[in-house]
Amino acid sequence: MIEFHLDGQSGISPYQQIVTQVRHALRLGLLREGDQLPTVKDVVSRLAINPNTVSKAYRELEHAGLVTARAGVGTFVTATMSDDTLAAQRSLRAGLERWLAKARRSGLDEETIEALFQSTVRSSAVQDIA
Amino acid sequence: MIEFHLDGQSGISPYQQIVTQVRHALRLGLLREGDQLPTVKDVVSRLAINPNTVSKAYRELEHAGLVTARAGVGTFVTATMSDDTLAAQRSLRAGLERWLAKARRSGLDEETIEALFQSTVRSSAVQDIA
Repeated sequence: MIEFHLDGQSGISPYQQIVTQVRHALRLGLLREGDQLPTVKDVVSRLAINPNTVSKAYRELEHAGLVTARAGVGTFVTATMSDDTLAAQRSLRAGLERWLAKARRSGLDEETIEALFQSTVRSSAVQDIA
Repeated sequence: MIEFHLDGQSGISPYQQIVTQVRHALRLGLLREGDQLPTVKDVVSRLAINPNTVSKAYRELEHAGLVTARAGVGTFVTATMSDDTLAAQRSLRAGLERWLAKARRSGLDEETIEALFQSTVRSSAVQDIA
């Protein structure tokens, strides 16, 4: 079952972090149709956040057609993202792990790694469009 | 001069996006001590956001000791992040560009690339601690 984690330094609201983590887990094939999300009660006890925050995130995911709440039972994934890229992701992940190890060995801290990634994604996406 | 961009899909507040973009530009050596930030008026006219949003971001950056507002003149960078990794960043950026090109050729969309990056950063950081 997915375990949520909150980054208090990110400037992203806890509600949005939960939504993004479910969306990303679907993209990475870590969540599939029929999988159950942790109950609101479980998330509240693990992360010490307001139950309304969790409910709001789950409602948004339901509104997006990704999960369905079954009264008294729980919230279940109702969509599986395309599997097309899952095999490619394994090799890409290995390449990225090597890149990250090199970046850390070069002395880059996590904020600089994040900055370099965002900057490179943006500049190479612009080139692709041009 | 730095040009801010806002991602309306990110779930991150515009104020936080401006703060992060300045911090990242400092990390990447794109902003240096003495550089001027765009005036609040310029940012408002370019991005169509509330002037209070820009002022709040600039105040937070000033509070963090990264910039200083000079009344009637503008806001200037007062800190330069360590240059230690700037040379390494060039080679790392080239490696990341190759990885991104491969990921896009493999059919990964931008959200999946972001998901794969965040997931790999988290899992490899955990390994480093263990």
